[in-house]
Amino acid sequence: MTGKTPLLQEIHEPKDLRCLSYAGLRELASEIRALIVSTVSRNGGHLASNLGAVELTIALHRVFDSPNDKIVFDVGHQCYTHKILTGRAASFESLRRSGGISGFPKKSESPHDAFETGHASTSISAALGLLAGETLSGGTGRVVAVIGDGALTGGLAYEALSHAGQLDLPLVVILNDNNMSISPNVGGLSKYLSRLSMKSRYQSIRRGIDRLVKRFPFFGSRIYDGMQRMKRGVKALFYTDNFFVDLGFEYVGPIEGHNLPVLEEVLRDVKKLGRPVVVHVITRKGKGYAFAENDPGNYHGVQSFSVEDGLVEPGNTPSFTNVFSAAIVALARKDSRIVAVTAAMEKGTGLGPFRAEFPGRFFDVGIAEEHAVTFSSGLAAAGLRPVAALYSTFMQRAVDQVIHDTALQRNPVIFAVDRAGLVSDDGETHQGLFDIALFRQVPGMTILAPAGRAELEAMLAFSASLASPSIIRYPKAACPQDHPSFALPLEPGRGVFVREKGGKALIAFTGSLYPQALEAADLLEASGIDADLYNLRFIKPLDEDYLVSVLARYESVLFAEDGIRSGGIGEYTAALALRRRLSCPVFALGVPDTFGNLGRRDELLAQYGLDARGIAGAVCELCPRPGLRVLSKAAPG
Amino acid sequence: MTGKTPLLQEIHEPKDLRCLSYAGLRELASEIRALIVSTVSRNGGHLASNLGAVELTIALHRVFDSPNDKIVFDVGHQCYTHKILTGRAASFESLRRSGGISGFPKKSESPHDAFETGHASTSISAALGLLAGETLSGGTGRVVAVIGDGALTGGLAYEALSHAGQLDLPLVVILNDNNMSISPNVGGLSKYLSRLSMKSRYQSIRRGIDRLVKRFPFFGSRIYDGMQRMKRGVKALFYTDNFFVDLGFEYVGPIEGHNLPVLEEVLRDVKKLGRPVVVHVITRKGKGYAFAENDPGNYHGVQSFSVEDGLVEPGNTPSFTNVFSAAIVALARKDSRIVAVTAAMEKGTGLGPFRAEFPGRFFDVGIAEEHAVTFSSGLAAAGLRPVAALYSTFMQRAVDQVIHDTALQRNPVIFAVDRAGLVSDDGETHQGLFDIALFRQVPGMTILAPAGRAELEAMLAFSASLASPSIIRYPKAACPQDHPSFALPLEPGRGVFVREKGGKALIAFTGSLYPQALEAADLLEASGIDADLYNLRFIKPLDEDYLVSVLARYESVLFAEDGIRSGGIGEYTAALALRRRLSCPVFALGVPDTFGNLGRRDELLAQYGLDARGIAGAVCELCPRPGLRVLSKAAPG
Repeated sequence: MTGKTPLLQEIHEPKDLRCLSYAGLRELASEIRALIVSTVSRNGGHLASNLGAVELTIALHRVFDSPNDKIVFDVGHQCYTHKILTGRAASFESLRRSGGISGFPKKSESPHDAFETGHASTSISAALGLLAGETLSGGTGRVVAVIGDGALTGGLAYEALSHAGQLDLPLVVILNDNNMSISPNVGGLSKYLSRLSMKSRYQSIRRGIDRLVKRFPFFGSRIYDGMQRMKRGVKALFYTDNFFVDLGFEYVGPIEGHNLPVLEEVLRDVKKLGRPVVVHVITRKGKGYAFAENDPGNYHGVQSFSVEDGLVEPGNTPSFTNVFSAAIVALARKDSRIVAVTAAMEKGTGLGPFRAEFPGRFFDVGIAEEHAVTFSSGLAAAGLRPVAALYSTFMQRAVDQVIHDTALQRNPVIFAVDRAGLVSDDGETHQGLFDIALFRQVPGMTILAPAGRAELEAMLAFSASLASPSIIRYPKAACPQDHPSFALPLEPGRGVFVREKGGKALIAFTGSLYPQALEAADLLEASGIDADLYNLRFIKPLDEDYLVSVLARYESVLFAEDGIRSGGIGEYTAALALRRRLSCPVFALGVPDTFGNLGRRDELLAQYGLDARGIAGAVCELCPRPGLRVLSKAAPG
Repeated sequence: MTGKTPLLQEIHEPKDLRCLSYAGLRELASEIRALIVSTVSRNGGHLASNLGAVELTIALHRVFDSPNDKIVFDVGHQCYTHKILTGRAASFESLRRSGGISGFPKKSESPHDAFETGHASTSISAALGLLAGETLSGGTGRVVAVIGDGALTGGLAYEALSHAGQLDLPLVVILNDNNMSISPNVGGLSKYLSRLSMKSRYQSIRRGIDRLVKRFPFFGSRIYDGMQRMKRGVKALFYTDNFFVDLGFEYVGPIEGHNLPVLEEVLRDVKKLGRPVVVHVITRKGKGYAFAENDPGNYHGVQSFSVEDGLVEPGNTPSFTNVFSAAIVALARKDSRIVAVTAAMEKGTGLGPFRAEFPGRFFDVGIAEEHAVTFSSGLAAAGLRPVAALYSTFMQRAVDQVIHDTALQRNPVIFAVDRAGLVSDDGETHQGLFDIALFRQVPGMTILAPAGRAELEAMLAFSASLASPSIIRYPKAACPQDHPSFALPLEPGRGVFVREKGGKALIAFTGSLYPQALEAADLLEASGIDADLYNLRFIKPLDEDYLVSVLARYESVLFAEDGIRSGGIGEYTAALALRRRLSCPVFALGVPDTFGNLGRRDELLAQYGLDARGIAGAVCELCPRPGLRVLSKAAPG
């Protein structure tokens, strides 16, 4: 932290906010914005969403008494101000660095982080549980859920709203409406919020925002019950009859989300209400940093950039995402059955060019992974070949839609699973560790893992030729371009040798570990050990006879996979080896029983023994026999 | 089929309905009801929901042209009339029997089954995909989703409604409102539908149902657009401004759901509309069978019963569900932190007695498994010990809520997973095959599988003592009561020997296979082979040193698990054995790569080699060595 944040240096916990005047608070908000912009410009992170929530977070911490009162931040990508105000300003420079401050709420960092988030649409559900628990335990703590309009499209949020309307506990839901999820918000609800907000704006002009706020306390009284019984036409004058009221909530809003006095006044009223309430707050994404305000989509989650000109340095190696992005466009030109579906991940999954060329064949369903999958299955049942492009971590939200709605009836959806395996910078909530284990068990599923460009292209075409569902999983990493093995024809259930020198040890790997496996073989070779390299390509189904014939040639086999070891391909192969009574040991190397720490992908691969040294070391440990004695020399420290 | 269905015998496909008068159709409806009641009384099945949808289904098939037009039945437990009208009347007597007609839509049975269902809330999503696909392909088929008010509480339905409002395709959503999910419907939405229906009933009295219907075609015209712009007070007179309209749908209703002429007239109008529309139909669950009409909850899903007096023969052996039901009440009396959560499965999970004794500590969130889990995690974070009781197959819908919202922050939710393993009569969609593989990979999770009563009780108490989440999984089956091993103290990560005679083979099993494993050992013993029996108790975590010390005593080990083999405990143990360089083979026995057929649990266990003969046979195959040569004599045919 620089010396340019004199007010912030006095804020060690939320109650320190109380002695500041509104002028001081506005100055504090500027300091916080400067700290967020400078830190994110160095470390990357969520910029626009955090800049939009500065005043809202200050107001929440002045009105509510955290940690006795609990604030649950949906997704968590707007919690930076909260972190800065709850004792983490000094360490904020370590944001998203290995061993540093997470970009999402973490209970281990602070008692003010009441509930951990990272995925969208969970906050109302969690907050309702916290409040019901607090109430049953006789506590007096308040609970506030802060949710964006984007996250409100997720079904879980709706399930929770409906239940909250029934329980009638004094839950406070802050609808942080910036008309923007990761991609511009879509769907009927979004349009509805816009209309709601337009109507209420008209009201606020007519009667003045102060009176709009002042009338609110009446709702807690019996007058409101009387109003409920009045005919709809009269109620319409007050615009209290809306989606949230239908579900059993009070509603107030919209409130100008960067006006601290108004925010505080409303929150103080709401705190006294004793009923579930939605406070509709209008904020501006990127507020206070012009580049982000003008282009919030591109400044949602960013890499490091220049504060002065807002420029992000482009990567110079094509990523798997880039390769997929081009491959699906090329395939769609030849095959009119190809359509693309995503859930608010158009940019992240590289579907922008597809949308531009085939707007009628592109569907962004908003933050709604379950619907994205079942909708895709419907498209497939109608004869199309939908490519549902989702991040691995978000596919976890649609497991039953894959099992029950897609695979059970063999509808040929192609899942393009990006950010599979270990993922840089976002930490535990965004790792893609589970997809192999989650979906390998699904009967009839095909799972493919490309090691490089030509494989990804071939796998996409292969998947489109299937009459059953398939998954293509690839990491958030540079995509290797030109190894000759990539271009070998795809044979169902079989992998290819990347190196075959007749060694006694075999390293079999899932595609994304190709660079690490290659380097491991080089390390071993430098120590005089020949290890062959086998790129699995297929994680499911496997041509078991062929695989057994490959394994049988070796004295020891290491299976390295970019995912959790439990339930992975290594365990499967171990069971296969025993079933087929192979004499060689098969050793499974994968991420151990952990969610995956915060750090860069290369750091994490090293941490879990999946970098070149880890893989080489595992090969050495695996073979302490006479025939492979020399291997022990190569054991890494 | 008896001779008492003369009209039905003339209906071979939907177009045969067109030549019948309304009087004939009413007679046909009676015949269909009689067939449903008599068949379900013998075979068990879904009674009340199917009896409520007879006229609705007839009307749909008269107005729409299946299979060119597609009807997607949500959940599918109201599709019996559809099956009877689409060529399956004669085979209907095989309902829910092995090799017979499924209780849910199945594409393999008929081209009229457009999309397979079984789990709730999927129909709008799937239908929207089918319609978008049809439209993109240049087809002209209509698509209708039939969804109950209960299923509408699921978040997926809401995600799909929101997307449909955006796409603006002419999707027809029939809201089959019987104010009833499996348990009485709950939540804000349910209250809202009641109010909506009250209001519209008032309208229909004032202006007559015919005029209510007649005004509907106007909505397709520009007049409607003009109306949209009129102020809310005026629109309120028409009651068209509601939740569905907010999301972008037209709305018509409520319609009396047992009045064929009205239903048909509305559906014919709707078919011309060209916009997404919700048709709100009021039906009565159990219609036409007095016992079911008066107690639809108990006649939702039934075993065989007597048609004359409606009596279901009670089972005489306590089930695992019964044991859990008593155990959670006993535990809650001692531990005030225990609360119970379910998702419209109060009766099925045995939580009725808990609710009766602790109403303030019981939460039924409706059909909303995702929210049930995240809400439970919130309760746990507030210091309580929630027991979330769900069926295994429905837990699939909340995988990310278990991973991301619960396990990641180690919130101590106890998942009581009923109907785990192979399940009788409901077929593929309701098998509990996946829970071990889905959740074994979750870091920090504890998974327990009781073999009998005392174990289930001890596991519940043990789970309540943990500071992290746990799963207790048990089958829909009789619960063994009194083996001495059940009472042995629970030691973390360790199983117990049920039989230990120093045999050379070991059968290790997950709890629910205790009876089969015991009988297998008896079969083997009768052939002169001693096999020891090891009840795993813990599926995760495992005390690996202890397990290795157990395995090391045997020449061969069979792991039998009541779930899919891929990703299961057998594969894990195989990898462990290789990692620890054990010399004995470990053979994994589980359900192969299949969703599990329709049949009784005992039939399915036999089919997948998990009955006593199958387990004994696998032990024999496993040990063709000199020391165990005699085993081959026992190989079952």
